[in-house]
Amino acid sequence: MRAGCCRWSRSAIIVLFLSAGAVLSLGRSASAAGEGGGGAHVDPFSYILIELAALILIAMVGRWVAAKVKQPSVLGELVVGVVAGNIGYAVGLPLSVVIMGLGSVQSLMAQVWATGLPVANVAPRLFSPDELAPGGIGHQLVELLTGPGANQLVIMATALWMFSNLGVIVLLFMVGLESTVEEMLRVGPRSLAVAVVGIVAPFVLGYLSSAALLPGASTAAHLFIGATLSATSVGITARVFKDLRRLQSPEAKVILGAAVIDDVLGLIILAIVVGIVVSGGVQFGQVLRIGLSSAFFLGAVMLYGERLVRLLMPVMSALDRTNLRLLFPLALACVLSWLANMINLAPIVGAFAAGLILNEEHFPDREGDHEATITRGMHPLEAIFAPAFFVLMGMQVNLATFASSRTIGLALAVTAAAFLGKLVSGLPAGRGTDRLSVGIGMVPRGEVGLIFASIGKAIGVVTDAVFSSVVMMVIVTTLAAPLLLQWSLFRKRRRRHDGAARPHGHAAQ
Amino acid sequence: MRAGCCRWSRSAIIVLFLSAGAVLSLGRSASAAGEGGGGAHVDPFSYILIELAALILIAMVGRWVAAKVKQPSVLGELVVGVVAGNIGYAVGLPLSVVIMGLGSVQSLMAQVWATGLPVANVAPRLFSPDELAPGGIGHQLVELLTGPGANQLVIMATALWMFSNLGVIVLLFMVGLESTVEEMLRVGPRSLAVAVVGIVAPFVLGYLSSAALLPGASTAAHLFIGATLSATSVGITARVFKDLRRLQSPEAKVILGAAVIDDVLGLIILAIVVGIVVSGGVQFGQVLRIGLSSAFFLGAVMLYGERLVRLLMPVMSALDRTNLRLLFPLALACVLSWLANMINLAPIVGAFAAGLILNEEHFPDREGDHEATITRGMHPLEAIFAPAFFVLMGMQVNLATFASSRTIGLALAVTAAAFLGKLVSGLPAGRGTDRLSVGIGMVPRGEVGLIFASIGKAIGVVTDAVFSSVVMMVIVTTLAAPLLLQWSLFRKRRRRHDGAARPHGHAAQ
Repeated sequence: MRAGCCRWSRSAIIVLFLSAGAVLSLGRSASAAGEGGGGAHVDPFSYILIELAALILIAMVGRWVAAKVKQPSVLGELVVGVVAGNIGYAVGLPLSVVIMGLGSVQSLMAQVWATGLPVANVAPRLFSPDELAPGGIGHQLVELLTGPGANQLVIMATALWMFSNLGVIVLLFMVGLESTVEEMLRVGPRSLAVAVVGIVAPFVLGYLSSAALLPGASTAAHLFIGATLSATSVGITARVFKDLRRLQSPEAKVILGAAVIDDVLGLIILAIVVGIVVSGGVQFGQVLRIGLSSAFFLGAVMLYGERLVRLLMPVMSALDRTNLRLLFPLALACVLSWLANMINLAPIVGAFAAGLILNEEHFPDREGDHEATITRGMHPLEAIFAPAFFVLMGMQVNLATFASSRTIGLALAVTAAAFLGKLVSGLPAGRGTDRLSVGIGMVPRGEVGLIFASIGKAIGVVTDAVFSSVVMMVIVTTLAAPLLLQWSLFRKRRRRHDGAARPHGHAAQ
Repeated sequence: MRAGCCRWSRSAIIVLFLSAGAVLSLGRSASAAGEGGGGAHVDPFSYILIELAALILIAMVGRWVAAKVKQPSVLGELVVGVVAGNIGYAVGLPLSVVIMGLGSVQSLMAQVWATGLPVANVAPRLFSPDELAPGGIGHQLVELLTGPGANQLVIMATALWMFSNLGVIVLLFMVGLESTVEEMLRVGPRSLAVAVVGIVAPFVLGYLSSAALLPGASTAAHLFIGATLSATSVGITARVFKDLRRLQSPEAKVILGAAVIDDVLGLIILAIVVGIVVSGGVQFGQVLRIGLSSAFFLGAVMLYGERLVRLLMPVMSALDRTNLRLLFPLALACVLSWLANMINLAPIVGAFAAGLILNEEHFPDREGDHEATITRGMHPLEAIFAPAFFVLMGMQVNLATFASSRTIGLALAVTAAAFLGKLVSGLPAGRGTDRLSVGIGMVPRGEVGLIFASIGKAIGVVTDAVFSSVVMMVIVTTLAAPLLLQWSLFRKRRRRHDGAARPHGHAAQ
């Protein structure tokens, strides 16, 4: 036992040294490549590889930390991302600066290629004078992207952007895969009511708190905060119910049904809000058009999607049977994501729809297929790129923004609105269920809220302070909900046991 | 039977329509996004997704074609890539033009970011006046990259470059994974002799034919053609031996042993040639330095690698046991590729070394791990990105270069040198083996030759004509070797049977 412990700590020290070395050389190579210049043969792809390795290792450390304190993995990945990102930013690591401003870097690169103008001329279109003053993020980015290491940083930033986008697509595909069209149509009226209240209440509360605390911001920004708060991701709740062996309880059933509906409603809300932001104003015709096209897209996919899958299956199976459960789902997710974007919806809507219509039953028997199930085929992609997304989200939280009392106020208000809005959604759960538990079960935001926030950042409506507040909200709701849920379910059981003279009190243990 | 057939052909028509639609919209969106401009919310990541889906589908069609004519998958992927790429290029699809000049596009983008100059000013550094004249590839690329769709094309090109590089890294990791350090040290003197002759003879013949046919080209170009011809990839040969149930024959053992050695020798040759090309001249000190550093790197990895893996295992296993067989191998491959590049070797050397030292035995028991083996964990990445590499290699073969009789002559000479050089390597196989079969078994070049050619293209030493010739050589050697091998093994068996009065003639069937 002692020897094992010693060996472990020796290895831990080695890993720490190695990771420190990797991070340092990452920083050093990022500057050296620029300074040194042409001479040595450095393959730019090797930067991407070390970046990927670093992301994988940071995410692994995050999961390890989370497991130690019995929290969901996503929390560990986020928190370790926040810590690593802010340390790197504080010491001025070029890559950390680029990650902190990843959304702006993407827009800057797009503008440079679209206009043919140099970085310095394009920057004033994207940054405020404050941000372009020495020390501001805009100034730092312009210096880096016109400096000697610019090409390397651009490649590394593009790779990170791709990894995290791929992670989001795979994540939403997996969320869709967990539900089927039939399940969605079978959801009861109680779940529907919980879902609708759970979308509307946080949306309204989010909008109001944003309007109250950010009077200078645009209506679009308020709408976006509302939309982000309306997201649900009850994977964490489901886990708690499962751990307590209460997955068959009426509360769990109402919550899981509501979650399926909320996934769809949330995506429609997101589409509408993005449409409003991009078109630059709330026009009723626009809102209607986007609402209808999302409903049309999701409706068409739900109605005809499974038929399409059944039609394509013999062809895909003839083309490459040995990778059928990997390549068909992936290709379908890509094509539907692209189609969704072609009709002005977010690509994730398509990825979700692809997961929804794919069903293990449609596939021929497993014989000859490398992958036993769709989930197993897609799992490596999820295991690599989804954590990369969470780590990168954490790395974009600029803790310095919390130095302002306004940001702290915003974070508190957003978090309170997030809690209150979802707690209220427990009310229509009806008699026979513990409404408080239902409400608490709806609270966690997890990945979906983060994805909404990242889209808002990409289209430029979410400022650094808002982004930081939203990530904090996600962390707090995801942290607190399981603890509160255990308390509230236990409280209920204890009360029931007290009333019923503990008929199975000991047996249950 | 008939009904099944009908259903199949109906679905085939649907797929054809869908793919045609996808390719057309891909082209249309590539131009429309540019023309339309800011208004609609188009997420640039959706281009990457449809691109990935198209690559997956094209590769699947390639494998289907190959299976129909009983050829290795890689051939089908390459040939379908050549056809699709050249059709797209002929009709002027912007993305096809960018793919045809992918290496130049990368260099162009690097120069733009490094210098801050516009595309048109940088182009004369990379292209000849011929290429910059209207109709030339340089002219077309400059037009596209300064046109309205430039940003989209840049993102799409970068994604393709990343996919194919990731495919190469995973491929070489898998090649390494098939061998172990022990196997490498156990290889007999006969295999060693076959390996060395099989490297030297094609290298010399390749150099000489290049020097004879391309008198205007640099020594570096001749060296690179020699290096490309020295590559071995006997996966195809192993498959033929396996299909004929002769994997335990002395010929098969000699060839497989030689292949293990050739993988390492080939990588060292590549390192030296790249070093010479980059430094711009054959300097003895330089050659010695690179030869020693590759030998040192590979030697150190072989000597201490397994110890390192055993040392890291408890930590990695504690960090995330459920994804151990996926994330540890991937992270190690990334880190070693980057390390290899840091000492001026190609990243694939590191990926190969990572595969070499990783061994299923080092991992704890499978319980709790999502993946049963390393191969199964890495398989999805290989199945997605390695075919993408082959398709993209095919798409970069400009069939128009074969309009010149000089290119045809070069392709023929390179192919002849490739055959002859490896056939000669059968001679030292010794008595008791069929030397002709050993020589034929060494002929296929497959992925390793392609990877060498792609590196040559990336560092600018391989011209379009040379690249096309080399890809043709890979296709011909890979096509012809299995057929010739079956003939030569059958000839030998028949002769032996004739001499020994057919003792097991019927039993063998």
